[in-house]
Amino acid sequence: MEKEDELVSQLLRSRSMEVERLKSDRQSLILVASLLDRIPNLAGLARTCEIFKASGLVVADANVIHDKQFQLISVTAEKWVPIMEVPVNSLKLFLEKKKREGFSILGLEQTANSVSLDKYQFPKKTVLVLGREKEGIPVDIIHVLDACVEIPQLGVVRSLNVHVSGAIALWEYTRQQRIQ
Amino acid sequence: MEKEDELVSQLLRSRSMEVERLKSDRQSLILVASLLDRIPNLAGLARTCEIFKASGLVVADANVIHDKQFQLISVTAEKWVPIMEVPVNSLKLFLEKKKREGFSILGLEQTANSVSLDKYQFPKKTVLVLGREKEGIPVDIIHVLDACVEIPQLGVVRSLNVHVSGAIALWEYTRQQRIQ
Repeated sequence: MEKEDELVSQLLRSRSMEVERLKSDRQSLILVASLLDRIPNLAGLARTCEIFKASGLVVADANVIHDKQFQLISVTAEKWVPIMEVPVNSLKLFLEKKKREGFSILGLEQTANSVSLDKYQFPKKTVLVLGREKEGIPVDIIHVLDACVEIPQLGVVRSLNVHVSGAIALWEYTRQQRIQ
Repeated sequence: MEKEDELVSQLLRSRSMEVERLKSDRQSLILVASLLDRIPNLAGLARTCEIFKASGLVVADANVIHDKQFQLISVTAEKWVPIMEVPVNSLKLFLEKKKREGFSILGLEQTANSVSLDKYQFPKKTVLVLGREKEGIPVDIIHVLDACVEIPQLGVVRSLNVHVSGAIALWEYTRQQRIQ
């Protein structure tokens, strides 16, 4: 009986170590979605962040993870990817803090100075800011950014969904890190 | 007055040529979504296909483009990207025909023999088959494929949404073609 107890406790220990291992060992990319409003986009991004092991998803209101629609789409991703709360009015301060910590602060946005995603070499420590569904990234946040990257859009209908754009950028970051 | 008529007719001609130019000049990639059921995924893919100028999106039932939900998400993309109808029971024949036309027939699917997306060099003439939302690509279709590619998924919750997966693969194809 004691032997069994020991085995069970060993098993629990190794399971909890496995869970810790899965939770750690994440990529040094933080995705900022505080400017986004639509819950399907936020939930989809949580799932995509988890798949590419982003170190965190920043949202304006962390209560969103209790929303039914969020949970349906995220399929428990929020249990694995760290969700951080940064309301829009604190976003500038947050980005400046991350910059001091050595992160490059990038925006995914079409501007006159944006670098095409396939021409951009992501720094390892990256904070990537996504724009609002319609208006994109507001000017005061643009000023904090070290660079803007954009997905070259070849067609006539010139706007990718923000979840899809974010996922493509996350993939491109991951692809580049895997080469190194 | 005649001069004005001439100008108007010239303007109309150059506009219609511009429209033709935008409609042509597409990439040699055909995305096959006949196995997909969910309208938001089909509509999202139409939009993404248009942005990366795929030469066509294959669906099981072309009437889907008249669906209100489809139109809301696709934002008129279906007017630009050619939509082709291939029902599931004709899919095998369609893929075999495309193979004879010189296309490589690929599946986006996690199998024992799948090549990781960042290790795969896409042929220019590519037909990319997406799997069903839950079950993936059925065995009889797997047999027709020249290769399977998969997106390396690093996390615990191991499934990207099929629209997001398709978009990432389309981006990767586009990125590779832009280098050449």
